[in-house]
Amino acid sequence: MKKLMNNPTNVVDEMIEGYVKAFPNYVKQLEENKRALVAVRQEETNKVGVLIGGGSGHEPAFMGYVGYGMADGVAVGNIFASPSPDPIVEVTKKIDNGQGVVFIYGNYAGDLMNFGMAAEIADLEEDIKVERVIVTDDVASAPKEEMHKRRGIAGEFFVTKAAGAAAEKGYSIEDVVRVAKQMNDVTRTMGVGLSPCSLPQTGMPSFELAEDEMEIGLGHHGEPGIEKGKLQTADEVVDRLVEDILKDMPIESGNKVAVLVNGLGSTTNMELYIMFRRVEQILSSKNIHIHRSFVGSYSTSLEMGGASVSIAKLNDELAEMIDFAADCPMYVQR
Amino acid sequence: MKKLMNNPTNVVDEMIEGYVKAFPNYVKQLEENKRALVAVRQEETNKVGVLIGGGSGHEPAFMGYVGYGMADGVAVGNIFASPSPDPIVEVTKKIDNGQGVVFIYGNYAGDLMNFGMAAEIADLEEDIKVERVIVTDDVASAPKEEMHKRRGIAGEFFVTKAAGAAAEKGYSIEDVVRVAKQMNDVTRTMGVGLSPCSLPQTGMPSFELAEDEMEIGLGHHGEPGIEKGKLQTADEVVDRLVEDILKDMPIESGNKVAVLVNGLGSTTNMELYIMFRRVEQILSSKNIHIHRSFVGSYSTSLEMGGASVSIAKLNDELAEMIDFAADCPMYVQR
Repeated sequence: MKKLMNNPTNVVDEMIEGYVKAFPNYVKQLEENKRALVAVRQEETNKVGVLIGGGSGHEPAFMGYVGYGMADGVAVGNIFASPSPDPIVEVTKKIDNGQGVVFIYGNYAGDLMNFGMAAEIADLEEDIKVERVIVTDDVASAPKEEMHKRRGIAGEFFVTKAAGAAAEKGYSIEDVVRVAKQMNDVTRTMGVGLSPCSLPQTGMPSFELAEDEMEIGLGHHGEPGIEKGKLQTADEVVDRLVEDILKDMPIESGNKVAVLVNGLGSTTNMELYIMFRRVEQILSSKNIHIHRSFVGSYSTSLEMGGASVSIAKLNDELAEMIDFAADCPMYVQR
Repeated sequence: MKKLMNNPTNVVDEMIEGYVKAFPNYVKQLEENKRALVAVRQEETNKVGVLIGGGSGHEPAFMGYVGYGMADGVAVGNIFASPSPDPIVEVTKKIDNGQGVVFIYGNYAGDLMNFGMAAEIADLEEDIKVERVIVTDDVASAPKEEMHKRRGIAGEFFVTKAAGAAAEKGYSIEDVVRVAKQMNDVTRTMGVGLSPCSLPQTGMPSFELAEDEMEIGLGHHGEPGIEKGKLQTADEVVDRLVEDILKDMPIESGNKVAVLVNGLGSTTNMELYIMFRRVEQILSSKNIHIHRSFVGSYSTSLEMGGASVSIAKLNDELAEMIDFAADCPMYVQR
């Protein structure tokens, strides 16, 4: 697939350089490590730090969500690969205000190892209290009995938002972690893949799928899904995705939820709105109230074709976090 | 190309339905015409109305830019086709507060005809003062001597923002028009196409390009560009785009500009940041100050591959408009 790039080995560094140049009032690169970015704040804060990160290729995640109401810093990995502990530690040192730092990342082997090592280093060498919240929203990636094996995908946006809002409100690290874990506990995502992306360095497609096929539950890095089949209509696909979510996490009539219909890269907003239409039909038929909606490409897999539906079951406190303002280069909420 | 949709003939109506359901606090469909959407405002206003619109397929444009600081209403056409006069007139009637309404749309035959007819109807039948601002930012679409023949593309975002901010500030209709026209006069866009989109109803690609080719100046609906050639590096492409812009509209050292690096659909944010990196290098080498940057898929051609660079040369008043807050479903600025 054609890409607008220079030397493929430099895509991540050039991307970061461009991003920081585009939003100098929002983010800066640390001198200690160029894969470590922190928010530029107009005023000193005394709040808990929120750190996000993971592999590149999911833009606007994760870099795009550094700013007021979201994360204070991000560690950026290579494409679809965890950042090494170094940038994580550097960001941690920078964003700690003595209240500790919460790491939020998806449940992937590389991230578990590197964020884990970084947490240990920050604790032992820098005496910074670090807590970790691991995102596991992808219903298709493991059965309910093995929830801890589930991968993190688009729902990480909600978890970051919850932690970021709680930290901004001055919550203690224990409460930021409580709110973020609670958001993860009530967030479920189901996705569908239609077409692969290609990695800049190899040009190879991330998976294969016939021109008339789709795959339910395909992972954000092309991990195999749970069912391959003929492409169905948007309504049929959404019916399936929402059904799987509600089977996994029953939601009672009268409850309120946040909904994210997320595009994986090359899927148009038009398709996402058409999908949202069906999500809304299903939920309103069950008297489930949509508290706030998010529709767009919030967490991508380069130019993969496909989309996911995330539903978060909200209590009043979580709804407050969802409604909290944000001001990041790639996500602003008034 | 695979699409998540139901009956292809219903994509636009289902898209609008989903969009309005997703953002009920922002937009509502008029009973008089379902292709006519207006902003939901918490308070009565007495300002000049700003109306945008055009064909569908450019999402998040134009629908996404209805809200505070941007447009008060939008008329939605079929895919790549102008809205008919009816929804334009209905929106006009709804958003007029006695101060008149400014129409902003791209320079396309269908839009010229339909917005023109709607303006006449609003004037003659409803006694509403209507002014029209036609966007002509696409440098590649006609030579400088025939500027009035140029098409409108991504730069329409800046023109809408200028008009929306001016209206919000309480400017008279004459001044809203003056500011919007001025923004159009100082905005230039150059784009590159890499891969076609396909229309939902036909499934046919919008143009053809070999796997190793790109086309400079390709239009937003697949209109032929000015040069087809081998795909070059991001830096080479950006050098060419910015050079053409600066040749067309010289910018002196010390001037300030707004920059929009816009993705056409399936081009990743990663590539857009890499492109922005080069734009910044070129402009800073010329001592041109980037006042504010916009990077993302602001105006697409369904899932077309490619991107454009828009540069607006700002005076102090236009910079104020660029900095003005916005609160729309698809664009928020604090």
